[in-house]
Amino acid sequence: MEINSYSFRVRYAETDQMGVVYHGNYTQYLEMGRVEWLRALGVTYKSMEDNGIILPVISLHINYKKSALYDDLITVVTQLKSKPLVKIEFDYKVYNESKELLATAHTVLAFMDKKTNRPIKCPDYILEKLGD
Amino acid sequence: MEINSYSFRVRYAETDQMGVVYHGNYTQYLEMGRVEWLRALGVTYKSMEDNGIILPVISLHINYKKSALYDDLITVVTQLKSKPLVKIEFDYKVYNESKELLATAHTVLAFMDKKTNRPIKCPDYILEKLGD
Amino acid sequence: MEINSYSFRVRYAETDQMGVVYHGNYTQYLEMGRVEWLRALGVTYKSMEDNGIILPVISLHINYKKSALYDDLITVVTQLKSKPLVKIEFDYKVYNESKELLATAHTVLAFMDKKTNRPIKCPDYILEKLGD
Amino acid sequence: MEINSYSFRVRYAETDQMGVVYHGNYTQYLEMGRVEWLRALGVTYKSMEDNGIILPVISLHINYKKSALYDDLITVVTQLKSKPLVKIEFDYKVYNESKELLATAHTVLAFMDKKTNRPIKCPDYILEKLGD
Repeated sequence: MEINSYSFRVRYAETDQMGVVYHGNYTQYLEMGRVEWLRALGVTYKSMEDNGIILPVISLHINYKKSALYDDLITVVTQLKSKPLVKIEFDYKVYNESKELLATAHTVLAFMDKKTNRPIKCPDYILEKLGD
Repeated sequence: MEINSYSFRVRYAETDQMGVVYHGNYTQYLEMGRVEWLRALGVTYKSMEDNGIILPVISLHINYKKSALYDDLITVVTQLKSKPLVKIEFDYKVYNESKELLATAHTVLAFMDKKTNRPIKCPDYILEKLGD
Repeated sequence: MEINSYSFRVRYAETDQMGVVYHGNYTQYLEMGRVEWLRALGVTYKSMEDNGIILPVISLHINYKKSALYDDLITVVTQLKSKPLVKIEFDYKVYNESKELLATAHTVLAFMDKKTNRPIKCPDYILEKLGD
Repeated sequence: MEINSYSFRVRYAETDQMGVVYHGNYTQYLEMGRVEWLRALGVTYKSMEDNGIILPVISLHINYKKSALYDDLITVVTQLKSKPLVKIEFDYKVYNESKELLATAHTVLAFMDKKTNRPIKCPDYILEKLGD
């Protein structure tokens, strides 16, 4: 299944008084991971929304193994878990610059019609890019 | 001019590794201050938006005097600066539980039509509440 | 097992362009839930940290069922899952004012010595409050 | 005076229900601007903190001219305003990919000893890099 890597630096605002990245901010890291996964496939999430499809997160699971620190260069490795139908599932691994595994994660998102707010199937232009 | 006080606790997520509230999070504190100022006047910002008026911030000024700490009970004192026309201006004072002044701030917001994205006058139902 | 409810309003900053609360911000809601659970027990997390114990999140699971909206009055119901040892587990239910269930969640946190960064047992003063 | 440009994409989490970047999130953009300004000078803010110097923001001023949108490629242009003494001042311009000016800003930060929490002078290693 398709894999994409995306790297960025930890912002000061993302730390908390434990001196590490606040655990909740990983949700933004995962989001950047899957957005860039999609961009690497040739689709932007922005254009999907502009065309009336939204992708809300319906399930989120993160296991924290080691802390991310301020100014760390973080890499999120995003992998599609299975062929998307009405849902799309991703597995993530989050690393620091020393290639230490900081967290693993899994999300499930649902394809939804923006107007009707009802579930729809994964658009064909994504399935085609996935070689379907 | 109308004054309103609003109190809440500092969240852990709002701190940074300096061990104090991240300076950028005061923008949320000010927002709560003016939203509750409006609610005390008998108007909710939510209903304003539902009725097609948005109030984007067009100018923000904050002076930081003393740090806010995790779990501090913060009070934002919000004061209308002048009669609102196409803009509305507020002055703010942010205090901790010991009544120490943590920050002073000033914002200018503009009344805008949500659909046309053009400036409009302050709605009459606000001016009336202000005794105009 | 001990249950606590905590309520607060959705901030504008917490919404995203889907017009609902950004899914990642629920991590802050859960954090407030367990901090207030602890306060209701007679312990503040702040004093725990001041006394050298930190409680990092090591596992987070959220299922999103319905969206939270701007200005909604949210209630987080926090329940201790089992007697805390070196870890402490909570289950959460997040409701809106109409008592609709918005999300369920589960977190595991670890008691750690702030200086040595090593796991420790749940402090006796918490176990005693739990009637142990 | 020294100028540095830094570019990054708007995250979904940074938008609010107006469909644009929440005004408060520009504080993080400015922070990235000055941190990268410093890195371009050959100094990391992280190493400064590790060496006992912190740089809290003591004054913040932002004028918002045009909205930043989700997935926009933002550029922050950061310029040192004057020779740093006990304070350091920056001017910022924030642009989108179409080179539209979204915001201008100004911050004042203070050099502080992390242990004593007292003001100190700008470290010599920064003044030297500035050709002083």
